[in-house]
Amino acid sequence: MSFLNLLDKACETNNSLLCVGLDIDLSKIPGSGSDEDRILEFNKRIVDLTKDCVCAYKPNIAFYEMYGVAGMQALIKTIEYIPEDIPVILDAKRGDIGHTAKAYAKSVFEVLSADAVTVNPFLGYDSIEPFIDYKDKGVFVLCLTSNKGSSDFQLASGEEVPLYKHVAEHVSQWNTFGNCGLVVGATNTDMLKEIRSVAGDMPILIPGVGAQGGDLEASVRFGATKNKNRAIINSSRGIIYADDPAAEAKKLRDEINRYR
Amino acid sequence: MSFLNLLDKACETNNSLLCVGLDIDLSKIPGSGSDEDRILEFNKRIVDLTKDCVCAYKPNIAFYEMYGVAGMQALIKTIEYIPEDIPVILDAKRGDIGHTAKAYAKSVFEVLSADAVTVNPFLGYDSIEPFIDYKDKGVFVLCLTSNKGSSDFQLASGEEVPLYKHVAEHVSQWNTFGNCGLVVGATNTDMLKEIRSVAGDMPILIPGVGAQGGDLEASVRFGATKNKNRAIINSSRGIIYADDPAAEAKKLRDEINRYR
Repeated sequence: MSFLNLLDKACETNNSLLCVGLDIDLSKIPGSGSDEDRILEFNKRIVDLTKDCVCAYKPNIAFYEMYGVAGMQALIKTIEYIPEDIPVILDAKRGDIGHTAKAYAKSVFEVLSADAVTVNPFLGYDSIEPFIDYKDKGVFVLCLTSNKGSSDFQLASGEEVPLYKHVAEHVSQWNTFGNCGLVVGATNTDMLKEIRSVAGDMPILIPGVGAQGGDLEASVRFGATKNKNRAIINSSRGIIYADDPAAEAKKLRDEINRYR
Repeated sequence: MSFLNLLDKACETNNSLLCVGLDIDLSKIPGSGSDEDRILEFNKRIVDLTKDCVCAYKPNIAFYEMYGVAGMQALIKTIEYIPEDIPVILDAKRGDIGHTAKAYAKSVFEVLSADAVTVNPFLGYDSIEPFIDYKDKGVFVLCLTSNKGSSDFQLASGEEVPLYKHVAEHVSQWNTFGNCGLVVGATNTDMLKEIRSVAGDMPILIPGVGAQGGDLEASVRFGATKNKNRAIINSSRGIIYADDPAAEAKKLRDEINRYR
């Protein structure tokens, strides 16, 4: 099944646009044992508690690389553990020239078995093509990020067309297999409306609603398509380190649905 | 010792601006045994054969991630094996929001023990700051890459100032600790001249002279500073898969020196 079908089905089954970010921090994880076991047990518990109300999981690979080989082992096993009917978007923001991008694509889709990945557009089409060539996998291209630094280049004023708009337009053209998407931070909802008008039915991954203070209502209203889907609202720390992750995920899922 | 001192010393000791890229491809590596052992033995041999005529080594992490945990183990051991007086630039092209960039910086500098790293500027200053904060480490920011896709955004016409120029100017300002550098592909030597005039004494990492067909003479002439250094000319496949890697490295080192 293609990533997009998997995503649409999970959205429907769980009536949810919520994606839970599995951003590990061992200093916040209880328990003893090896790093690998602690990370894996933590993630398994989060998955068990939230799998009936999410449309996707999004581990950010940086938080696994930080723990070296143990982190990578835990990531592989976490992805294995996530039920097959819930897609895994690996947040890796990879980007390199074609020959090297092929190696990254192999790593992400064949070694780690992710269903989708985030990539960085700075190096242009041939850096993204090797990911797109996996037609059944999803490829989310960074368009406009949620951080302060997004103003340095993505939003740079003084140019006729800001970079994020160039990116949205290019990715729409690159989407010949229908497996591309965009990443747009929830802190930029004015531009999200504009980007959705360019993006057609492409899924848009929207991080930044929790700790980063993005606007949830506008993210859903402007991010979702006419069919009220294809917006993937991500929350990481706000859910996984909550006292009751299940309740927190359900609450956010329901709040999102009120705005759909 | 700071990265820049380490680099300058290696350049002087080996009278070299040559960086050898350790881009692994198991299908081209002879021998039996585990993936980890084959990669490590291959890299050890390359290092033994070339360590007297390089100023740096540059493993691209994509080619290790492709082999999963075995690849990562081999990368860690390869970096350990490289003599302490030759800097290791980890080509990782990382870029993520500040909180996540911190995790990547920890992975690159503390887990993998690289002396320098390549990063992607798309997410702006706060995505690079956590790397720069390791004052004794080097941070090479992608400016203008050697691939065809560099024309999609970096060189995009129709804008008053192309993106790569914005990047060069911003990084010059961000370089308050003196540990920043730029990456400029050898296929864009006209712009390299212009970038060097903006970059002052910053080191410029220049890939793309081998298989990618960049202009070696112009890369050295336009890339090096007045003191005839701070240009790091990278060759990967052209050396490590040569029949005689030692001879090939020496030949390229000497050719570079003729243009200095």
